[in-house]
Amino acid sequence: MNKRPLILVTNDDGITAPGIRKLIDVMKSIGDVVVVAPDSPQSGMGHAITVDSTLTVDQIKADGEQLEYKCSGTPADCVKLGIRQVLKRKPDLCVSGINHGSNASVNVIYSGTMSAAIEAGIEGIPAIGFSLLDYSWDANFDNLVEDIKKITMNVLENGLPEGIVLNVNFPNSQNGFEGIKICRQAKGNWVETFDKRVNPMGKEYYWLSGKFENMDKGEDTDIWALDNNYISVVPTQFDMTAHHFIQQLNNWDL
Amino acid sequence: MNKRPLILVTNDDGITAPGIRKLIDVMKSIGDVVVVAPDSPQSGMGHAITVDSTLTVDQIKADGEQLEYKCSGTPADCVKLGIRQVLKRKPDLCVSGINHGSNASVNVIYSGTMSAAIEAGIEGIPAIGFSLLDYSWDANFDNLVEDIKKITMNVLENGLPEGIVLNVNFPNSQNGFEGIKICRQAKGNWVETFDKRVNPMGKEYYWLSGKFENMDKGEDTDIWALDNNYISVVPTQFDMTAHHFIQQLNNWDL
Repeated sequence: MNKRPLILVTNDDGITAPGIRKLIDVMKSIGDVVVVAPDSPQSGMGHAITVDSTLTVDQIKADGEQLEYKCSGTPADCVKLGIRQVLKRKPDLCVSGINHGSNASVNVIYSGTMSAAIEAGIEGIPAIGFSLLDYSWDANFDNLVEDIKKITMNVLENGLPEGIVLNVNFPNSQNGFEGIKICRQAKGNWVETFDKRVNPMGKEYYWLSGKFENMDKGEDTDIWALDNNYISVVPTQFDMTAHHFIQQLNNWDL
Repeated sequence: MNKRPLILVTNDDGITAPGIRKLIDVMKSIGDVVVVAPDSPQSGMGHAITVDSTLTVDQIKADGEQLEYKCSGTPADCVKLGIRQVLKRKPDLCVSGINHGSNASVNVIYSGTMSAAIEAGIEGIPAIGFSLLDYSWDANFDNLVEDIKKITMNVLENGLPEGIVLNVNFPNSQNGFEGIKICRQAKGNWVETFDKRVNPMGKEYYWLSGKFENMDKGEDTDIWALDNNYISVVPTQFDMTAHHFIQQLNNWDL
């Protein structure tokens, strides 16, 4: 690539989150950065888009010279608005994150971070979602910088095939990582416990809570990699067809 | 199956939508029905879940003897709450819909209807999302009944492999269908146009609008089937790993 790449940065924790501030810093060392990110946290938004209400986009100056826009919508809205309304040309890359918390295994389905990357992928833009397995607001993102650069440069140089984006998760380690592992999404789910409470008016309500359960013993999964202090990289597609089951379905009495 | 199956019914248009009322009717002829559905429309919610606010579930009597619960959350929340909190045992089937509008091609990604089916699939429950290519509230669902029954009975008799749910779309036809076609998800996207307006206070805002573009000429896709008056059935998985790209990624300089 001869000229500096144009990089769209977004996330789901909101434009003021430390994770996206660090990602912006890293991307400024690689290319020209435009930020379009939610004005408030959007965790657990999955691939939601805003169809029944209005959207606003406001230019702000957060911490420097680069253009930043805060958007009232979801991460997927941010990418759509970024591409169609804010940017003058199609970006060379879209990065989302760094998410405060895991998007490994089935979390990819619920993830606003990954929905932004996938939305860019649908538009034919190479895209990466970055997440750190630390939910705290003051998580330390410093030791992720070199690996984020390396993965990003690889994507810019090699490109990504149509229909594929990368889901990158970092283990929560302050002492460096074992390396980078290409993985598949582990089979797992959340076992929810709904915490039932009673409000001051006597009405019952719930808080969604739960525990992730890994049901996958494979050593080629993202959960295995993260448990063993590797950075996991899962190539993620949005053709959700179970191609291998089509032939069998054709034998049904339909 | 010796005894009547227990069927969880949900949707994303809300518990009062004609589409779910029709689906409830059909399912009552097949098994014991419990409804847990959003108390308001949730279109475009993708696989959103409610993590940062509270949830309520209220039992109602909508139009008969069967148990119905309206829930303040998303379609995925409804399934989680239905399984963990409302139902006494794991249901034998979860059906979602009938959606007022298409969930073919890339729409599966944005679909609240399909997120409910996928959530059930993650829990190991056979699940089907039904959609009709008619967005109007007074769409006619009558001529879908026999095919919904046929597909549902097939799922109850044959089961579905772990990790796979069905995405069923009906063409908007009042004169019957050519038949049922097993398909793959067509490659397509939405070309958005943001309708920019100015509010009474002088501030700009947007409405998300757009046009679906099919980029797939294959005759084995859901879009082709629907364009040719077939009912499309796409086996849909939530392992989003692009397995075919893992080997190539291992050759990168990471």
